[in-house]
Amino acid sequence: MFKVTLKDKDTKARLGELTTAHGVMHTPCFMPVGTHATIKGLYPKDVLDAGAEVMLSNTYHLFLRPGMNIIQKAGGLHKFISWDKPILTDSGGYQIFSLSLLRKLDDRGVEFQSHIDGARHFLTPEDIIDIQNCLGSDIIMPLDECVHYPCTKDKAKIASDRTLDWARRSLRRMSKVKGAGPNKEQHLFGIVQGATFEELRASCARELAEMDFDGYSIGGVSVGEPSGLIYNILGFTADILPEEKPRYAMGIGYPQDILEAVERGIDMFDCVVPTRYGRNGTAFTSRGKVKIGNAPYAHDFSPLDEKCSCYACRNFSRAYLRHLFNAQEMLGLTLLSLHNVYFFLDLMRKIRDAIEEKSFAEFKKHFLSSYSENELLYPNP
Amino acid sequence: MFKVTLKDKDTKARLGELTTAHGVMHTPCFMPVGTHATIKGLYPKDVLDAGAEVMLSNTYHLFLRPGMNIIQKAGGLHKFISWDKPILTDSGGYQIFSLSLLRKLDDRGVEFQSHIDGARHFLTPEDIIDIQNCLGSDIIMPLDECVHYPCTKDKAKIASDRTLDWARRSLRRMSKVKGAGPNKEQHLFGIVQGATFEELRASCARELAEMDFDGYSIGGVSVGEPSGLIYNILGFTADILPEEKPRYAMGIGYPQDILEAVERGIDMFDCVVPTRYGRNGTAFTSRGKVKIGNAPYAHDFSPLDEKCSCYACRNFSRAYLRHLFNAQEMLGLTLLSLHNVYFFLDLMRKIRDAIEEKSFAEFKKHFLSSYSENELLYPNP
Repeated sequence: MFKVTLKDKDTKARLGELTTAHGVMHTPCFMPVGTHATIKGLYPKDVLDAGAEVMLSNTYHLFLRPGMNIIQKAGGLHKFISWDKPILTDSGGYQIFSLSLLRKLDDRGVEFQSHIDGARHFLTPEDIIDIQNCLGSDIIMPLDECVHYPCTKDKAKIASDRTLDWARRSLRRMSKVKGAGPNKEQHLFGIVQGATFEELRASCARELAEMDFDGYSIGGVSVGEPSGLIYNILGFTADILPEEKPRYAMGIGYPQDILEAVERGIDMFDCVVPTRYGRNGTAFTSRGKVKIGNAPYAHDFSPLDEKCSCYACRNFSRAYLRHLFNAQEMLGLTLLSLHNVYFFLDLMRKIRDAIEEKSFAEFKKHFLSSYSENELLYPNP
Repeated sequence: MFKVTLKDKDTKARLGELTTAHGVMHTPCFMPVGTHATIKGLYPKDVLDAGAEVMLSNTYHLFLRPGMNIIQKAGGLHKFISWDKPILTDSGGYQIFSLSLLRKLDDRGVEFQSHIDGARHFLTPEDIIDIQNCLGSDIIMPLDECVHYPCTKDKAKIASDRTLDWARRSLRRMSKVKGAGPNKEQHLFGIVQGATFEELRASCARELAEMDFDGYSIGGVSVGEPSGLIYNILGFTADILPEEKPRYAMGIGYPQDILEAVERGIDMFDCVVPTRYGRNGTAFTSRGKVKIGNAPYAHDFSPLDEKCSCYACRNFSRAYLRHLFNAQEMLGLTLLSLHNVYFFLDLMRKIRDAIEEKSFAEFKKHFLSSYSENELLYPNP
């Protein structure tokens, strides 16, 4: 299902192809996030036109609304949302920890209250597999326990051990239900936890590697720790994971994070940043972030990014986009969201091209020399 | 600029072609409304794909925000909003009367306070021509005075006389500034007022007809009067207006209104209904209105309208659209808006086809036999 097609000589970056029942994903890849079964504000056709080969959706949200009954009746998630490319679903673990009103967690599973209506639910790792089996997503995640930063080593060990136990139970359950849902070829990934402790990360990664998952996620990163620490954990963990399996850095990240992670051998990324920033009026550009509401853009008739060829940049000026935001028009939100999703997907295309052309390190350096994670002051420097 | 290409034998319906600097409009036509220089929630490319040949925008709103300075710098409205098909702009008169905080009107012009920031403005009929000259819209309207329903005959006469005086001044101004803006081929329409009084409508229409405008609008309809009265006024006025000029029923209307008006010889329509209803969760279908939030649609996997071939109906179910509305997702609003705009444009296509095939009266009867302006009860009857 996964094939590393090229390895960079200077770094650990690699090109790969991940085959699913709904098509091939070319890695390194970015997965736009469709929390409530929609990539916020965008038509699926436009996300595909922007070059997406896969999207992510959230099991926790789908389970609560519209609920499994409706998605099952629709014939699975792909049919429900009209998306026939690969879908990855997470386990819901992270949302249960961050969104639900009440949460009681023990070795059996997790009890929580819905953030929508307060209804109580108890879910085991087996339930989480069954739910995703019913969704029919192409790549699924087992229930895991994520800890926040900072966290004591003891707490991190408990969470990591529980994640390992749940991983074993998830694999067993998967062997029973695989093929029962609308997607006969689901891939189950293992999730590495262990907070910022190399020893815990290492043992978690090694034990998971022995369990023969279809791929490996690195969870519990970008939960408040400094960037340097994120890159260390990603690199350290990637080195331990099996070469021949895809590696997914959950919830990563900003453009710079993605470049650093690719350099360390990570293949897959997802983040809500493109659409969330878009809705809030911030565009990612090759020079940095543009906050479109700023006054000087009122008279700026250049596109968001001269180097971008997305629909928004080919057709609309900063002045028009600023007007739309000022007038609180939806079109402003949707155009910036589309541009940002395109920007991230385009970054991945460029990364893949650079690896192909054996110039990834150079590309990374060149990109970061003009790009800043800070907001641009106007006029552009 | 306007050519009647076919006249129906059984009714007063007619086919026409209105030529502008940005292309030909095939009439009878519907103009989606882009109040703030955007058809709410829709990419221009999707509105074009849905078959729009023209859009409408509001002078009052554009004048206040982003302001003429910015649109002028952009090179006119078409360039500012990236729409290279025809644009019709209204005079702003209706918005000044309905939206602005304070309004003082006399023969010289109108003073009003912006509904956005309270700033005071005084505009003459000449200013309104200059503003639209600067916008560069293809079809422009003179300042007029619109009265509400009901209205005394005396008041209606004052408004109608003032509208006529302003029409003369607008024509004079137009002869001076035509060609000065970004669009060398602007068409100026006259607006018939006169409330529900046939005598006033008749004299207003006759006087305007003598002034040789490029087309004629019927204003001050659908301001609260019963449907029967609307149809009478439209039919009565259309009969007086010159055959060889296009006739535009401002702010009309619902599907049934459009059919009745076409039957009476009206060529052009605009209304905010498709996008406003879409944002509020109501879809127009061949059987009537579907309120997508209603509970039974949760398990309804059919499209909004089996007979519709818009992007929303080709790809998404009522169950999914209801989910999006429930989860307050933008995609729900934008898909319903797109569907509704398509529905109205498709109705116009069918009307034109029916006139072409000499079966308009039959088409109208057939359409209205299955279509209801009421909200559909579920399941569909």
